[in-house]
Amino acid sequence: MENNIYELQYAMDTFYFLVCGALVMWMAAGFAMLEAGLVRSKNTTEILTKNVALFSIACTMYLVCGYQIMYGGGYFLSGITEVDTAAVLGEFAAREDGFQGGSIYSGASDFFFQVVFVATAMSIVSGAVAERMKLWAFLAFAVVMTAVIYPMEGSWTWGGESVFGLYNLGDMGFKDFAGSGIVHLAGAAAALAGVILLGARKGKYGPNGEIRAIPGANLPLATLGTFILWMGWFGFNGGSVLKLGDIGNAHSVALVFLNTNAAAAGGLIGALLLGYLFFRKADLTMALNGALAGLVAITASPDTPLPLVATLIGFGGGLLVVLSILMMDKVKIDDPVGAISVHGVVGLYGLLVVPFTADGTSFFGQLAGALTIFVWVFGASLIVWLIIKTLFGLRVTEDQEYSGVDITECGMEAYPEFTTK
Amino acid sequence: MENNIYELQYAMDTFYFLVCGALVMWMAAGFAMLEAGLVRSKNTTEILTKNVALFSIACTMYLVCGYQIMYGGGYFLSGITEVDTAAVLGEFAAREDGFQGGSIYSGASDFFFQVVFVATAMSIVSGAVAERMKLWAFLAFAVVMTAVIYPMEGSWTWGGESVFGLYNLGDMGFKDFAGSGIVHLAGAAAALAGVILLGARKGKYGPNGEIRAIPGANLPLATLGTFILWMGWFGFNGGSVLKLGDIGNAHSVALVFLNTNAAAAGGLIGALLLGYLFFRKADLTMALNGALAGLVAITASPDTPLPLVATLIGFGGGLLVVLSILMMDKVKIDDPVGAISVHGVVGLYGLLVVPFTADGTSFFGQLAGALTIFVWVFGASLIVWLIIKTLFGLRVTEDQEYSGVDITECGMEAYPEFTTK
Amino acid sequence: MENNIYELQYAMDTFYFLVCGALVMWMAAGFAMLEAGLVRSKNTTEILTKNVALFSIACTMYLVCGYQIMYGGGYFLSGITEVDTAAVLGEFAAREDGFQGGSIYSGASDFFFQVVFVATAMSIVSGAVAERMKLWAFLAFAVVMTAVIYPMEGSWTWGGESVFGLYNLGDMGFKDFAGSGIVHLAGAAAALAGVILLGARKGKYGPNGEIRAIPGANLPLATLGTFILWMGWFGFNGGSVLKLGDIGNAHSVALVFLNTNAAAAGGLIGALLLGYLFFRKADLTMALNGALAGLVAITASPDTPLPLVATLIGFGGGLLVVLSILMMDKVKIDDPVGAISVHGVVGLYGLLVVPFTADGTSFFGQLAGALTIFVWVFGASLIVWLIIKTLFGLRVTEDQEYSGVDITECGMEAYPEFTTK
Repeated sequence: MENNIYELQYAMDTFYFLVCGALVMWMAAGFAMLEAGLVRSKNTTEILTKNVALFSIACTMYLVCGYQIMYGGGYFLSGITEVDTAAVLGEFAAREDGFQGGSIYSGASDFFFQVVFVATAMSIVSGAVAERMKLWAFLAFAVVMTAVIYPMEGSWTWGGESVFGLYNLGDMGFKDFAGSGIVHLAGAAAALAGVILLGARKGKYGPNGEIRAIPGANLPLATLGTFILWMGWFGFNGGSVLKLGDIGNAHSVALVFLNTNAAAAGGLIGALLLGYLFFRKADLTMALNGALAGLVAITASPDTPLPLVATLIGFGGGLLVVLSILMMDKVKIDDPVGAISVHGVVGLYGLLVVPFTADGTSFFGQLAGALTIFVWVFGASLIVWLIIKTLFGLRVTEDQEYSGVDITECGMEAYPEFTTK
Repeated sequence: MENNIYELQYAMDTFYFLVCGALVMWMAAGFAMLEAGLVRSKNTTEILTKNVALFSIACTMYLVCGYQIMYGGGYFLSGITEVDTAAVLGEFAAREDGFQGGSIYSGASDFFFQVVFVATAMSIVSGAVAERMKLWAFLAFAVVMTAVIYPMEGSWTWGGESVFGLYNLGDMGFKDFAGSGIVHLAGAAAALAGVILLGARKGKYGPNGEIRAIPGANLPLATLGTFILWMGWFGFNGGSVLKLGDIGNAHSVALVFLNTNAAAAGGLIGALLLGYLFFRKADLTMALNGALAGLVAITASPDTPLPLVATLIGFGGGLLVVLSILMMDKVKIDDPVGAISVHGVVGLYGLLVVPFTADGTSFFGQLAGALTIFVWVFGASLIVWLIIKTLFGLRVTEDQEYSGVDITECGMEAYPEFTTK
Repeated sequence: MENNIYELQYAMDTFYFLVCGALVMWMAAGFAMLEAGLVRSKNTTEILTKNVALFSIACTMYLVCGYQIMYGGGYFLSGITEVDTAAVLGEFAAREDGFQGGSIYSGASDFFFQVVFVATAMSIVSGAVAERMKLWAFLAFAVVMTAVIYPMEGSWTWGGESVFGLYNLGDMGFKDFAGSGIVHLAGAAAALAGVILLGARKGKYGPNGEIRAIPGANLPLATLGTFILWMGWFGFNGGSVLKLGDIGNAHSVALVFLNTNAAAAGGLIGALLLGYLFFRKADLTMALNGALAGLVAITASPDTPLPLVATLIGFGGGLLVVLSILMMDKVKIDDPVGAISVHGVVGLYGLLVVPFTADGTSFFGQLAGALTIFVWVFGASLIVWLIIKTLFGLRVTEDQEYSGVDITECGMEAYPEFTTK
């Protein structure tokens, strides 16, 4: 009968992973809609294509070698089709108290949960380089990012069992619960390297230093994308508890859901208010980025703060993202959707506020971890982007950029019957 | 080993709450898309802003004081970050049969599930007052509604442990399973008070009593919103069983999912057919409102009817909503999305048909409950709207209304490249 | 205490069904968005109306008689409102090992899970006949398809307990895990019969055999629809394991999620690459259809291949769907969204590759099963379409087709402020 209890716990923890993984997969749709809403209509088909293709590439490359680099567990997941019930029950029985302790669940559910994280990191990049990067250059980068760059740095924090995981950031008191750094800052670092090499969109910055707003073509889509991300984030953070099936962990999962939601709300309010102070308008795109900033900020430690503290952490992220977006334009880093600010600047902020609520962490450890991630991902990405630039070129021609990449790259308009410009 | 079973039940019931809560949170996206699809393009950014902001305000204010007013449990949820496993197991053990009986689950999951209900009630308001109310006036109302007005009436039915819950509608045989009255009628009552003070949109009613149709700008968006709400409603009603983890309750949850779906289908068919009788066209917006009406109608007692009876209850809601929408225009209550009809008129209908399928309820008790909710929410809202009107004004200027609130309130168009009018 | 374990297993398996069912319901939104994105704007309101109405009809007709035909269990599900806990526990206890073996769960959750499959089959039809079929003719067909045609063939594979299930395809080694044939090929067969009777859209094929592209009006919508379907498919395939609550089945569910995702990714990549070879462009609509093809292809046996094999099965589906879409145009079968290729041709392919990974299946058995399904559904559908054609006519007038069915059938435009053509 004890065994039946173990079987139920295994089933419950596996299902919890799958549900959370499905929610994180849904974030891919969120990024696609967000980015499609924030670019101009002439570049919409292409950004959609990039988003569906990067997700597919991530799922395939992580299967081919990424998961092995990050966690070990065998290339191609050979052996995953079978489960040996007796052996699993033996694992439970071998523990001091079989029921408590780390989670034992299906390796297939683990892969499913992890693979959608890779895709998230890569999704961050597509928005920042939108409206001017060659589609195939971007996809080539996606192959390397999801096969090697992300899995490598991921192994340093989460992947103790991989050979690359021997260097472990956790040893110096680094905590990154669900990936403010490992996923979000990493994605932003890769994006930044690309944006620097790529340069700004034509017309974004005037000859006398003017900054010209280039409004997104479809704000309901951007709003939908934000709501999707908000929802998917429950899986992203909630699943990162890694176990559901006892009282302590179940409560922890619940607290993570609650805090994740609170931080998003706080972030939105912060950005809406600061945007109003600056522009005297209720700036919707700032508000959306504020919600995302709140989510990124809480991701490093959603299991420790009181809910109202989570709201405040999110609120701070919402303020910061507005300032950062304005600042990026000052230094002429052209990021059409604000991804570098949302995921990079606020990702760093999220890491740095962890010591206020989480025992056993230190400001130094957090900073060291953030630096490690940034230096590796930025450096490796820069090299890869450079190689791609040399081999194929990164940027479409000026003519192509003017007429829009939808026609030149994809051969079809996103809204062939609507556009008046 | 008994304790392990309790732990699994606790984990299962907590997770069930979280999944249902995430689905209800998703309804916020549904309302946003529905409303954005049904207003004109010049007022789309603003309605999106209202929707994301009201959700964030609801999540924050309910945390600050709303939950305490409605259920007790402590301001700011202090103490929620910890769970005492031994104490929880003691709770289980103290019961006659530890496993059966009311659900024991994480308080954090309870808050998460409840907070998204508040946001739902508030979302109903935004549609009805669309296209002419000042954004900040609306948000000011949202603060009071989610902090006090909703929690107060909620405590009278669902909140036995709050001090305000001493007056309990359940004592007179009132049943409102998931909130046809407490959430939907309440939201509609607040909206009605606002609409009466606000007046109709310019041009909606002609000088000789003509009623002019003002078509929504984006029907795929409205359809998407309806599908999102339909899906989210499984969490709304299904989660309101409050326990999953034994045979009786699991079956009840399943029946609720089934009946919720059946009623939505019935509502859509009813509205589609009646719309066809009236207009000789398959009226999509009526059909969508019919599905929502079916959902609102079944919400008061989704756990009692046979599925085909649920279809019929929904069908009745679908007929009623068409009649109600036409009637509202006759009396010049201008509700751009039909929210007062869907959630108010059909919410009342949903409460009144409960005694046909639920033992221990009475028509009188249902009516008394509905009246209590309506009088309180309408009255309190009217006062709050009046105060806001006096202090800041409720309505944008005629010029602003003509050029659209997107530019004047938010400084950006929703579809800058599309609109031809 | 043993009973408590059974109760938890029952609750877990019921909840698993409900979550998966909710995901499959969500696929209805996916089809609606996909189809609305791929038709012209003048036919968008109508395709949305068809989609919401067919879902409602499916849910109602399956309740009235479809479920009884397919599985038995009583017309109208009489008796479903009650559960006899003691009797359920008796069922568990009567088994050799009460905990293992087939799943015991709420009948209400079973109906909920099955009913959304019917809707999926019917959704496939609406896309193929889009832009020229009369709305009410389509809905009349939906009534017969969901009440009789689908339930009948479904009973031959999945419905052993229905009287119609006595003829069982499984007896000849036919495996169709989640419905590559029973759902997808069946939907495509019904669509094909309709398309043949209906003829091509005006202007699709020129007098000298030219094939004219008719671009969809809203590609972000089509992309969103694809993402929704991708996500919903986790429920479609994952729920088809039918049991979650022990180690073996939980692992199986996880493997199914993993393989479903891998196949979709493979399909997208295959179609993107082949499309590029043909057109020298990254063809987004082909890529989307590739992802769907990958999903359809893996659906017949997602529980057996290694993940990388699943990727390859999907990849093959992605290649095939591009060829099939081009071929359909050669033979002048006008299918605006490619549904017959995605669900029919690739559905057949999915069935035929099963023997490579699944023991106990044979190429002959798969072919025989596919033929049985196709002959029955195509034949029965042809008769029903013919009857409808005789009684009411299938096709709108040339004038109506020219001006768009939105105005003539639904009385409202989908985007009244946007369209410039």
